[in-house]
Amino acid sequence: MSINTFGHLFRVTTWGESHGPALGATVDGCPPGIAIDEPMIQRWLDLRKPGTSKYTTQRREPDAVKILSGVFEGRTTGTPVQLMIENTDQRSKDYSEIMEKFRPGHADITYWQKYGIRDYRGGGRSSARETAARVAAGGLARAALAELAPGIEIQGYMTQIGPHGIDRARFDAEEIGRNPFWCPDPQAAEDWAGYMDALRKSGNSVGAIVEVVARGVPAGLGAPIYGKLDTDLTAAMMSINAVKGVEIGEGMAAALLTGEENADEIFIGPDGKPAYSSNHAGGILGGISTGQEIVVRFAVKPTSSILKTRATITKSGEQAEIITKGRHDPCVGIRAVPVGEAMMACVILDHILLNRGQIGGAVGETRGRIG
Amino acid sequence: MSINTFGHLFRVTTWGESHGPALGATVDGCPPGIAIDEPMIQRWLDLRKPGTSKYTTQRREPDAVKILSGVFEGRTTGTPVQLMIENTDQRSKDYSEIMEKFRPGHADITYWQKYGIRDYRGGGRSSARETAARVAAGGLARAALAELAPGIEIQGYMTQIGPHGIDRARFDAEEIGRNPFWCPDPQAAEDWAGYMDALRKSGNSVGAIVEVVARGVPAGLGAPIYGKLDTDLTAAMMSINAVKGVEIGEGMAAALLTGEENADEIFIGPDGKPAYSSNHAGGILGGISTGQEIVVRFAVKPTSSILKTRATITKSGEQAEIITKGRHDPCVGIRAVPVGEAMMACVILDHILLNRGQIGGAVGETRGRIG
Amino acid sequence: MSINTFGHLFRVTTWGESHGPALGATVDGCPPGIAIDEPMIQRWLDLRKPGTSKYTTQRREPDAVKILSGVFEGRTTGTPVQLMIENTDQRSKDYSEIMEKFRPGHADITYWQKYGIRDYRGGGRSSARETAARVAAGGLARAALAELAPGIEIQGYMTQIGPHGIDRARFDAEEIGRNPFWCPDPQAAEDWAGYMDALRKSGNSVGAIVEVVARGVPAGLGAPIYGKLDTDLTAAMMSINAVKGVEIGEGMAAALLTGEENADEIFIGPDGKPAYSSNHAGGILGGISTGQEIVVRFAVKPTSSILKTRATITKSGEQAEIITKGRHDPCVGIRAVPVGEAMMACVILDHILLNRGQIGGAVGETRGRIG
Amino acid sequence: MSINTFGHLFRVTTWGESHGPALGATVDGCPPGIAIDEPMIQRWLDLRKPGTSKYTTQRREPDAVKILSGVFEGRTTGTPVQLMIENTDQRSKDYSEIMEKFRPGHADITYWQKYGIRDYRGGGRSSARETAARVAAGGLARAALAELAPGIEIQGYMTQIGPHGIDRARFDAEEIGRNPFWCPDPQAAEDWAGYMDALRKSGNSVGAIVEVVARGVPAGLGAPIYGKLDTDLTAAMMSINAVKGVEIGEGMAAALLTGEENADEIFIGPDGKPAYSSNHAGGILGGISTGQEIVVRFAVKPTSSILKTRATITKSGEQAEIITKGRHDPCVGIRAVPVGEAMMACVILDHILLNRGQIGGAVGETRGRIG
Repeated sequence: MSINTFGHLFRVTTWGESHGPALGATVDGCPPGIAIDEPMIQRWLDLRKPGTSKYTTQRREPDAVKILSGVFEGRTTGTPVQLMIENTDQRSKDYSEIMEKFRPGHADITYWQKYGIRDYRGGGRSSARETAARVAAGGLARAALAELAPGIEIQGYMTQIGPHGIDRARFDAEEIGRNPFWCPDPQAAEDWAGYMDALRKSGNSVGAIVEVVARGVPAGLGAPIYGKLDTDLTAAMMSINAVKGVEIGEGMAAALLTGEENADEIFIGPDGKPAYSSNHAGGILGGISTGQEIVVRFAVKPTSSILKTRATITKSGEQAEIITKGRHDPCVGIRAVPVGEAMMACVILDHILLNRGQIGGAVGETRGRIG
Repeated sequence: MSINTFGHLFRVTTWGESHGPALGATVDGCPPGIAIDEPMIQRWLDLRKPGTSKYTTQRREPDAVKILSGVFEGRTTGTPVQLMIENTDQRSKDYSEIMEKFRPGHADITYWQKYGIRDYRGGGRSSARETAARVAAGGLARAALAELAPGIEIQGYMTQIGPHGIDRARFDAEEIGRNPFWCPDPQAAEDWAGYMDALRKSGNSVGAIVEVVARGVPAGLGAPIYGKLDTDLTAAMMSINAVKGVEIGEGMAAALLTGEENADEIFIGPDGKPAYSSNHAGGILGGISTGQEIVVRFAVKPTSSILKTRATITKSGEQAEIITKGRHDPCVGIRAVPVGEAMMACVILDHILLNRGQIGGAVGETRGRIG
Repeated sequence: MSINTFGHLFRVTTWGESHGPALGATVDGCPPGIAIDEPMIQRWLDLRKPGTSKYTTQRREPDAVKILSGVFEGRTTGTPVQLMIENTDQRSKDYSEIMEKFRPGHADITYWQKYGIRDYRGGGRSSARETAARVAAGGLARAALAELAPGIEIQGYMTQIGPHGIDRARFDAEEIGRNPFWCPDPQAAEDWAGYMDALRKSGNSVGAIVEVVARGVPAGLGAPIYGKLDTDLTAAMMSINAVKGVEIGEGMAAALLTGEENADEIFIGPDGKPAYSSNHAGGILGGISTGQEIVVRFAVKPTSSILKTRATITKSGEQAEIITKGRHDPCVGIRAVPVGEAMMACVILDHILLNRGQIGGAVGETRGRIG
Repeated sequence: MSINTFGHLFRVTTWGESHGPALGATVDGCPPGIAIDEPMIQRWLDLRKPGTSKYTTQRREPDAVKILSGVFEGRTTGTPVQLMIENTDQRSKDYSEIMEKFRPGHADITYWQKYGIRDYRGGGRSSARETAARVAAGGLARAALAELAPGIEIQGYMTQIGPHGIDRARFDAEEIGRNPFWCPDPQAAEDWAGYMDALRKSGNSVGAIVEVVARGVPAGLGAPIYGKLDTDLTAAMMSINAVKGVEIGEGMAAALLTGEENADEIFIGPDGKPAYSSNHAGGILGGISTGQEIVVRFAVKPTSSILKTRATITKSGEQAEIITKGRHDPCVGIRAVPVGEAMMACVILDHILLNRGQIGGAVGETRGRIG
């Protein structure tokens, strides 16, 4: 079995390889009547596309999306939406190095072991290029959210690159778009620039942590026990290339807390709705949204294609060394920020639809009232 | 939509509430011909059941499993296996406190908001009692693995309780079953006992970290891009009550590494198969198993039912205080260890079946050979 | 892979064998807040249960349903509903005949070939007893429909037994409950009684046709292209034991019509809604309900357990003869009527929930208005 | 929820509209290593494409398929296969007639009611053009079957057009490809030509019956209770545009038989495997294949776009008359033959993969031996 689809009701199937003619997302389950056109999706793709700064791969791809189906006269029809991105920069190059050898830390060896046939050109299906299709689908999800649940805002940013983390006391949301690292701390952004310059020149790469926050998400989303909102978000993030850990709210640090510390106390807010003294929960209790900010964090490992010599083996079973030339991201976490946002948008939309299916009524309507 | 099923081919649907007449797991997709009986499953339930030490809830439940279908003359028939556990200790008590008030940090408020009807007795569906059904299903999965992939071993243990972690230099697998904490470090186990005694007396609770390892898993398991082995394991663990973070291999710390450090170098092992210099990957590359140990870690937040006074609100919208009496786990992470093992067993079995469906042939067979 | 679940959002997993301790349905996705208790479900089981007339099997089963989960204080909670029916009349008898030999026309041989292990007692999982679980789930679906879409009426009846069909000119809905054949034509019911008496005495069995009609179904239900309302209804009916053909509206006879004859002309009805001159479509166009009566018809083959001698083979590959004694239905189609109704109820409820998930709003709400 | 996917492990999602830029099939779950190229798929599309005789629509479409992903160096890689067909003959024409009015017997009105937005150009998503994507996916399924289960042959043909059926005594498989009707009876083919000429000139249309047979299918395929082979085949056929009835083996006529007549007696064949005296079952017992021919039959209603005047209503709710000009199939059943074959190929491949997932081993391997 092969599983290239995610989502329960808003279902996205991504297809395509790094160096094939095209890649894309087949989206089934988008509600009808949503206003959408190519520029509305392109906007998000432009944020992820390679080559926008010296800190990302220098491959040149316009990542221009085409809507092939499911939209008529500027609105979704309720039928599948096909979003296609043609590959243009399939540079003819010498692949002999990775054709025969496996890059340590890369999916080269496991794809070969599993499938016995491997599109070695640029990583084939295991390439981060696949995430362009996710961002396209996320653009459609955002358009649907804008109509179905207008108040929702989704924002991703980086909190750490290698050993250098942000200082949350300096957090400034306005800063995020102003530097090539999606960094909310202007001081950290400067430090990272210096660190990354040196790293890039040395031919090495580094890991990172991305945080994605959703504000304005109504209470009541999540389908316990095995379709909890946090479960689905965690799976969505873990499915992104190179992710090795995912946290909700307090995350791994929840292990350090006592019950007294961890309990987000509840009050009646000025709007008569529940308000909380803190958000250790990351906006989710029992797998269901509380109405607070949804906070997800994930760690991206360093790119495995590096200019450093590492021991490896060949397909024919001989010991070898490898050093990977080419156009690679020194910190693939940077380009994972728009991808994390896209996954957040898709999961929240999916759960809004799920909630309607079980609870009915308007978006985000719940059955239990307080007060 | 309600989602109480997990798994692709080995599909487990859990049902039942903390204080209903029974709970259980409906398992569809278990291969036919697997030797199984009630004691083989009971063995694992006995490890999870409450009241086995002073560090877990004092509720008394025999957690006796009955096989109601799918097994004939000691072997599975290929039809659904119904595993039922009757609740016996549904102690008649005063629920008025949590009937009207929401425990901070608990699913009380979100279940109420979402469903408008809530089985407040012992947490209803959101109770950790649900995990008994998972352990039963895990027992069946282990029996299937024993026949289909005999070499696989799954072991869980705790690495941290509150601020106290184990020292990996003292790691001793034999020690795990000898203390009430599944602790592989005898010194840490002693420290934990003292810490937990004090905590329990104070009426507080604490978080923990659980690590689950699977050895002998063949290379080639995992269904990229959205059914990756790590994605499915992460979702499985995050679906357990109170889990807030999940890590594969290096986990969140992967952010700290350079590509050079992170690259697990590859050699030809003495058996002619690939061998690795390290296991930052946690046994999974590109979502597919490498043949190394699979390493998953998750953080469990502290129990929210505590004897400490916290601010909260009532269903009718009034400000209030709550202090939760009753029989609760001071560290629910302890009982999560057998649950984590069960989820690991279910996911690995599921991926063995998935791999047969796509690749065919014997268990763990892959198509690409090395050497 | 084993598939014992049907439905998209209202998902029913049936489990259990003819002669095991119990059988049942695990129902996930029932909306919360639905009023339900055991008598409301028992009512429908009593219509299907064996031994109610001399024309059905003389096995005595009370078919008493127990609700084990998902209901609290008389209402569904939105969590899985477990409906269990204990088997009581597992008569100790001599199974040596069918233990070694395969009944022609029965699943004996294919279950053996597929699974290599077979619960031969009463047919095991392939027994029509499995349909009791469907009827229980259908009872829950009807309760949900009664609240979500109050006007819907579902009625099944027989239109043919062997060579004897009803005369539609004599159709009288009141008659259906008055005879042991669910026959809407009093004259046919008399003829059938005579025919069946002779057939039963001869030890033979016979096929039948069942028609199930749903009135009051709103327009707009159905999820093209592969979850069309007619596709799902057809699959639901074909999954019932012994069914060999399914028709929607005109059915196979649609082949005989010209386009001019087949076109159900459209008018504006007295209520301002579309009205149709005829219903060749059976209430479904393009897989979506029109608001007319939904009409489904299915053929049930004759019971294969008969007192007639037939040639067969044994498990060890020897030629043999078989004659099946025991308590069998001479026309299993009779007891399929409540089963067909139950499947109709489940599918319609499922599509009401699906429609809410995609279109949103109240039950049966559609987006396009006419006039 | 929108459902544009079919299959369990070999999953086909079709997308696209009649007059959009392109349509296609996203195929997930095709095993790796299957030899495939565009001509191998084109061959089947050429059989279905419009305009090949005067008895089908005169729309001119080359229906040229492009493989955009999932194939490398002539073999499938185990990743999603994207099959795209560009629309070329999107003739600019006057759609005002069906833009405002609903064709009786067509999905026009239900799509409008459901979605509130409708691609009226050529029927949009409800057009039979969607079936081109099925035929493309079926071509891939056939290629996989050719490698995984070499002996399987799938053949479709027509058995009835309007009142004129074939004479099975004259059945000649060689004849099927020799006439424009896929008719196995040369005499009937001649009669049909005359009948259709007259019908076409009168501007009317007519229904038909298609039969699809699969030979060489191994015993043991099918996933009871809700993924039976006959259930899945029936659903597959019913999902084709305009189908109103589906039969397996004896079909609706099973109602006429006694148990004695219906029982296909079992013998030991010359190869030591079970052999049957007859095939009332259509090759399926209890939802599992017997090894005999699989026989499926379905009725296709007449095209609803006709040159006859019919009463209808407009979107604004006014009474009207409609007469549909344009390039339509006088008997859409003719072009349904390759579509039925494609669905048969997809379902059988899917069940071979399902069987491996549950039973394991080589293709079609079963666990129970006879003799």
